[in-house]
Amino acid sequence: MTESVLDYMIRLGRAARDASRVLARASTAQKNQALQAIADVLEAQSEALLSANAQDLAQGQANGLDAAMLDRLALTPARISDMIAGLRQVATLPDPIGAIRDMRYLPSGIQVGKMRVPLGVIGIIYESRPNVTIDAASLCLKSGNATILRGGSEAIHSNQAIARCIQKGLAEVGLPAAAVQVVETTDRAAVGALITQPEYVDVIVPRGGKGLIERISAEARVPVIKHLDGICHVYIDQAADVEKAIRVADNAKTQRFAPCNTMETLLVHEQIAAQVLPPLADIYQQKGVELRGCPKTRDLLGTAVVAATEEDWSTEYNAPILSIKILSSLEEAISHINHYGSHHTDAIITENFTDARRFLTEVDSSSVMVNASTRFADGFEYGLGAEIGISTDKLHARGPVGLEGLTSEKYIVFGDGHVRT
Amino acid sequence: MTESVLDYMIRLGRAARDASRVLARASTAQKNQALQAIADVLEAQSEALLSANAQDLAQGQANGLDAAMLDRLALTPARISDMIAGLRQVATLPDPIGAIRDMRYLPSGIQVGKMRVPLGVIGIIYESRPNVTIDAASLCLKSGNATILRGGSEAIHSNQAIARCIQKGLAEVGLPAAAVQVVETTDRAAVGALITQPEYVDVIVPRGGKGLIERISAEARVPVIKHLDGICHVYIDQAADVEKAIRVADNAKTQRFAPCNTMETLLVHEQIAAQVLPPLADIYQQKGVELRGCPKTRDLLGTAVVAATEEDWSTEYNAPILSIKILSSLEEAISHINHYGSHHTDAIITENFTDARRFLTEVDSSSVMVNASTRFADGFEYGLGAEIGISTDKLHARGPVGLEGLTSEKYIVFGDGHVRT
Repeated sequence: MTESVLDYMIRLGRAARDASRVLARASTAQKNQALQAIADVLEAQSEALLSANAQDLAQGQANGLDAAMLDRLALTPARISDMIAGLRQVATLPDPIGAIRDMRYLPSGIQVGKMRVPLGVIGIIYESRPNVTIDAASLCLKSGNATILRGGSEAIHSNQAIARCIQKGLAEVGLPAAAVQVVETTDRAAVGALITQPEYVDVIVPRGGKGLIERISAEARVPVIKHLDGICHVYIDQAADVEKAIRVADNAKTQRFAPCNTMETLLVHEQIAAQVLPPLADIYQQKGVELRGCPKTRDLLGTAVVAATEEDWSTEYNAPILSIKILSSLEEAISHINHYGSHHTDAIITENFTDARRFLTEVDSSSVMVNASTRFADGFEYGLGAEIGISTDKLHARGPVGLEGLTSEKYIVFGDGHVRT
Repeated sequence: MTESVLDYMIRLGRAARDASRVLARASTAQKNQALQAIADVLEAQSEALLSANAQDLAQGQANGLDAAMLDRLALTPARISDMIAGLRQVATLPDPIGAIRDMRYLPSGIQVGKMRVPLGVIGIIYESRPNVTIDAASLCLKSGNATILRGGSEAIHSNQAIARCIQKGLAEVGLPAAAVQVVETTDRAAVGALITQPEYVDVIVPRGGKGLIERISAEARVPVIKHLDGICHVYIDQAADVEKAIRVADNAKTQRFAPCNTMETLLVHEQIAAQVLPPLADIYQQKGVELRGCPKTRDLLGTAVVAATEEDWSTEYNAPILSIKILSSLEEAISHINHYGSHHTDAIITENFTDARRFLTEVDSSSVMVNASTRFADGFEYGLGAEIGISTDKLHARGPVGLEGLTSEKYIVFGDGHVRT
């Protein structure tokens, strides 16, 4: 292209802003028809998608991408089916837009309430997985937002092929092409432009590794919905049911090692440690989990447990490693979590009502659980239908972010010629 | 002080973070008792407050502050009574903290809902009015947040005197002194430190002129709840009731000239202009309002109306000046408001249901009104009890921000040993 990257991004931004006005007043039926139309086009164009993806994969191999990167980049017939199913599922979710709540008469005679509205234009910045293009576009479209999508440069052919399917679907139902725009340049200046244009972009959702998210958060002049770390804890209280404690602590660590809602540190009250830790250590060792413990833990479990360092308590392993600490009170557990944790997801295992109530109130995390595995912290498991990500920010959306997190509310006021005196 | 300003602010931040944990679990009764205790101390210490304020006023006069600045700075017995009444009123408001909503069983068997919690630590940066110290502290305290208050250097003695009253009240009910901290240095580096410490400060609320807010927004690494401009519109639709149109357009401009919710631009449909504009022009001229109009407006009202420039449409006068534009459609009015407005408060005057519905849906502002004066956009008038400010941001809080805007929600999950499969 002959225009500069900045001019190109401003052009995209302006078009997105204009399209957002049209989407904000689009009917639920029209948005659902668009989602179904895009699903139909993806079905018809599966071959084209696979061949565009083959180009990206070949280039990725030539560029020496590792196996994990290539796996994330790959589209398969099964993954395309999942994308199509995802679109059709979002079409079945209730439309949050236009909902009016709490209309009340005030002493002056005016009637005041709130109406749910789209945020406007959402920028999504992500890495190699091409399916994010469809997941993010579908949630933004359903919530009445225009989207500017910037995927990884290694997925450029796949993302452009998906973009053509989206454009075709939008055109079929008469929605503007700029409702969903996929950035066509792989120039990194495009990201810089996207995150510094509050006049055209209302919020950025970064999806990817911690490095990407830290960089975007540091440089953005647009609000960012994000989480950085998932240092999740399970605390086995003095009053825990031993069987439930073992079941949950096993699942929270070993069901999958990589997700952000996997437990990284197990906290155990000293009064119950001798009952729960030896059987748990057997399970973890069978499943190949390396254990790192405080001195009391090593006294109990032996020196097969590595000595945990200060750094372990604030490390997200995303791997078969678990740090374990034995504590002498609930207060100590709450302090440890608020100090070392990442405010993502933390659980207490207890049969004691007061301990559960204190943990729920005092642990300052986006999800706080009693007698359930941290692995449940997820938009689908919470009944949101789908999620665009998980937020550990305190403002706006916190925890798994579904359609509602992509909306705002404005005040509406009804009068009959009322004036202020 | 011998420590650096940065070290001092870090010390305040750490203390605030610790205090915020105590406040988060404080009972409603304890918070209300603190508010009443602070009110009692203010009553007992009125003389001390007035004499501290006299110091600030004398210094302000010596420094050549203008009459308007000195008026904002002044405490009077009536203003102290208002502060005391404000504290007692906030004590009567319902406590938002701890409310649990939407607990639902999911197919996996877990029960998921949301609990309302404080944001944590709120930094308030304001200018000369010392009463902001009490208003802001009371709302933050009631919503379970620790506060760091940084007032104008010209009000330092008044603010320190108020701070001593707050400290005394907090101590009486056993809440930590760091629940409300007033910055003791007038060094501007303190503001820079406050707005760049996300580890200690969760949100900044700036209260003051546009210059202050722009500077803070540009430099902050902490989220800011704010509005910059109040370019509010009244649109008199073709289907307006003439009597209501005149009443509302008069009130929206002339009830007070300075507030952010005062109308700055009047938009009129061409089919009704000849009926409403001549009588309105008479009213405005009687009340000393300068009119600036589009060519059609000047054709109708004569050359006593100044020709409006492009700049007039995006100017917040905060003064007895009004720009007027005659338009040929509702679409044109909505486009004008979304383009030139500040997304603060805009009203339509109409008897037509469909026009009202379109205006409510399509105008992208924090408050949108039908047949009511823009002057109603205010926390008290909306029934929030009190407000910490008005937000035109789309994320988190939008419109007048009361206690709920100073809180967040976290997900809570109840299980019975549930694990993810």
